[in-house]
Amino acid sequence: MKKHLIIIGGVAAGAKTAAKARRQDENLKITIYTSDKHVSYSGCGLPYYISNTVKSNDELIIRTPQEFKEKQNIDIHTEQLVTRIDPDKKEISIKNLKTNEEYNDKYDYLMISTGAEPFVPPIEGRELKNVFTLRNVTDSIEIKKLIDSGSIKNAVIVGGGLIGLECAEAFKERGLNVTVIELAGQILPLLDTEMAEQVEKHCKEKGINIITGDGVKKITGNSKGIVDKVITGNHEIKTDLVLLSIGVRPNTKIAKEAGIELGVAGAIKVNKRMETNIPGIYSAGDCVESTNILTGEAVFTPLGSVANKQARVAAINMLGGHDEFYGVLGTVIVKVFDFNIAKVGLSEKEASDKGLDCLATTIKAKDKAGYYPGAKIITLKMIADKNTRRILGCQVIGEGIVDKRIDVMVTAITGGLTVDDLEQLDLAYSPPYSPAIDIVIVAAGKLVKDLSREPATKI
Amino acid sequence: MKKHLIIIGGVAAGAKTAAKARRQDENLKITIYTSDKHVSYSGCGLPYYISNTVKSNDELIIRTPQEFKEKQNIDIHTEQLVTRIDPDKKEISIKNLKTNEEYNDKYDYLMISTGAEPFVPPIEGRELKNVFTLRNVTDSIEIKKLIDSGSIKNAVIVGGGLIGLECAEAFKERGLNVTVIELAGQILPLLDTEMAEQVEKHCKEKGINIITGDGVKKITGNSKGIVDKVITGNHEIKTDLVLLSIGVRPNTKIAKEAGIELGVAGAIKVNKRMETNIPGIYSAGDCVESTNILTGEAVFTPLGSVANKQARVAAINMLGGHDEFYGVLGTVIVKVFDFNIAKVGLSEKEASDKGLDCLATTIKAKDKAGYYPGAKIITLKMIADKNTRRILGCQVIGEGIVDKRIDVMVTAITGGLTVDDLEQLDLAYSPPYSPAIDIVIVAAGKLVKDLSREPATKI
Repeated sequence: MKKHLIIIGGVAAGAKTAAKARRQDENLKITIYTSDKHVSYSGCGLPYYISNTVKSNDELIIRTPQEFKEKQNIDIHTEQLVTRIDPDKKEISIKNLKTNEEYNDKYDYLMISTGAEPFVPPIEGRELKNVFTLRNVTDSIEIKKLIDSGSIKNAVIVGGGLIGLECAEAFKERGLNVTVIELAGQILPLLDTEMAEQVEKHCKEKGINIITGDGVKKITGNSKGIVDKVITGNHEIKTDLVLLSIGVRPNTKIAKEAGIELGVAGAIKVNKRMETNIPGIYSAGDCVESTNILTGEAVFTPLGSVANKQARVAAINMLGGHDEFYGVLGTVIVKVFDFNIAKVGLSEKEASDKGLDCLATTIKAKDKAGYYPGAKIITLKMIADKNTRRILGCQVIGEGIVDKRIDVMVTAITGGLTVDDLEQLDLAYSPPYSPAIDIVIVAAGKLVKDLSREPATKI
Repeated sequence: MKKHLIIIGGVAAGAKTAAKARRQDENLKITIYTSDKHVSYSGCGLPYYISNTVKSNDELIIRTPQEFKEKQNIDIHTEQLVTRIDPDKKEISIKNLKTNEEYNDKYDYLMISTGAEPFVPPIEGRELKNVFTLRNVTDSIEIKKLIDSGSIKNAVIVGGGLIGLECAEAFKERGLNVTVIELAGQILPLLDTEMAEQVEKHCKEKGINIITGDGVKKITGNSKGIVDKVITGNHEIKTDLVLLSIGVRPNTKIAKEAGIELGVAGAIKVNKRMETNIPGIYSAGDCVESTNILTGEAVFTPLGSVANKQARVAAINMLGGHDEFYGVLGTVIVKVFDFNIAKVGLSEKEASDKGLDCLATTIKAKDKAGYYPGAKIITLKMIADKNTRRILGCQVIGEGIVDKRIDVMVTAITGGLTVDDLEQLDLAYSPPYSPAIDIVIVAAGKLVKDLSREPATKI
């Protein structure tokens, strides 16, 4: 009889596992169960669908269940909630969300790619109409429909992180008055304060109202149960729409109940082969923890790019091969209006908090030859370890090209390059692409100079 | 008495040496002699001045002699040709090109940054009017003036390398009919043939006439001594302007006559400290040879970005510090119409010619998330060593973003990353910047797969 691979969840990691497993084994029976209505879509594209940058949500769908079936003989069952895993019987229980019918299915290999779900704190009024989270295609359709109706004017976004700011831009593009509320003292708490302040200034110039250091106490509604106000410690804000984008939590309830060990932030603990503590059960994507390559610490970094890499490794190992997932560097990038914002590794504050002996430098420079049309300013902050001279982290923000610089820094950290190596990097130069001396080289050179001036570290 | 640093040549390496030396030593007397009318300009920007992308040649000037004097007390003497170096007397002889007067000057430190000059083969007719080379600001002004006059229609470019193609675009932008003649069987001989063919196709679509595998036999002129035809082995082409862009040769005559050892392509041999065989005489920029970090071979790679790095190292060492220039990776990038073309390391052909046991893969993919507006196709060819699994080279071309990918590969080669490392690189992902799985990762993954299928290398 054919061996059966069951995959729970079908967005990034789930879809990738199915596709990769099929390429490895033509005879395997492959089934995906998902509580979602959609599979294999770009979750990161949802704000662009709301903003009308992407016209149809079909464009966000990478492959439909029909395509999975026709091209790779993969069976996908949507709106099917897996409620229980029984590792001893190698069986799962499923509830059909359309009919409420319950049934079981048996596996030889099991992949848990249940992803993450938005964290919704127990705020009064969170159940009111037009209070949203944004995680899946259905969420985005509902939000877009409301905006399309033309009946609303004001939006409040709770949380000034990546998704919060992407949605601030999307809502503004759609003509809404937008307020972002962030509990921390700054938006984008993953950035050093002075960098985040530049982003905040840009958002304000684009007309976004930003409140930091203030938390939501209560959400109120009108007689029809529709949200009408957000009440914070210091403000009362009239609104027609609330988006809660406070962060996500790994979706690991059934895993935990099955005896699967959890780690940081409640994410599933896996080894480098992406196998859980129960042999034969693998996990990947937004529900697992990763290792930060720089610090060696377990971290929770739910990202589509990471999910794909982990799923590949899991699929290979599950079917008898061997591969390892090395970990992450905490790379993030986000576009907010005309600003590009990227980070890899540790911020200066994070490095200092960890007791690392580090030195930072910040450079402002043009992204192309100064005279080349369209050249724009970017700010790059580079953080190095004083003792090893290796790079600990980098932040690049501004209207110019930042993704190139951050990806160079990602590669530099992966390769263990020092500031001395970076200063001599033979980067591609021609006026349309960079100045003769790129900002990465300028910053590294500044650190080389500053490090030689620093007194030797006391031991 | 103050020590005297004399710098011969004042474009990239010369200007950088002066600026860096001043920052190192406030009391030094610093003098630049140059035969050129201009100093400290972006030679790489000249085609963009001709095309009117850059409106005034002033924009290409990074600093004027007045600024050097006022800001850093550096004396610059233009149109002064250094004719002789006497290392024993620590003296140079100079000819004033405006007055023909000759005189001497004494140095304590000498920097030779005489750059390179266009190679002009002994073709009959090369002295005719409107036959140009493009190396300095004066050249670009003359060419632009001729085009501005509106009196010409046709241009022939001899040489289908980087500058030849940049000028093909510039001339076409200005409304000329452009023919490029390349002796080799393909334009951009530094690329593998199938990559160069894509560029050729794009140029032809833009209306450029390209002739490959054919050499210029003769240039003819009319009764007024103005060029009127280029005659090749197989063609006779009517033209009003000829640009000879066959390549450059290091300008090392006076260095050689002074007993300074030359290396590859007649470029000045220097050690890692950028010092010539005569102690105390340093050299940097387009007149020196470099070491290819990948192959360990001496190479001649005249580039503004390299010149700046070498000059920094030279200035530090000259004044008693210690630094080393590691070498180059042969990184190049060029924009030709809507195509971006970049390379680092070896092409597949170059690697094979060197007897390296290599494997290549070519991937075509979008540069951003497929649904994100403006996403464009790029082609990436990655070449790895079968035994070490390290990257030997990479070429990326197309209408999408290629500079980011090539700079990642530059950093990867510098860090000695393998295809396995690259496949897991934690590159920045968000729809406006890249697909969830970037082309670099796709290509590395393909090589990982192909390498595991390859039979082990026979020893």
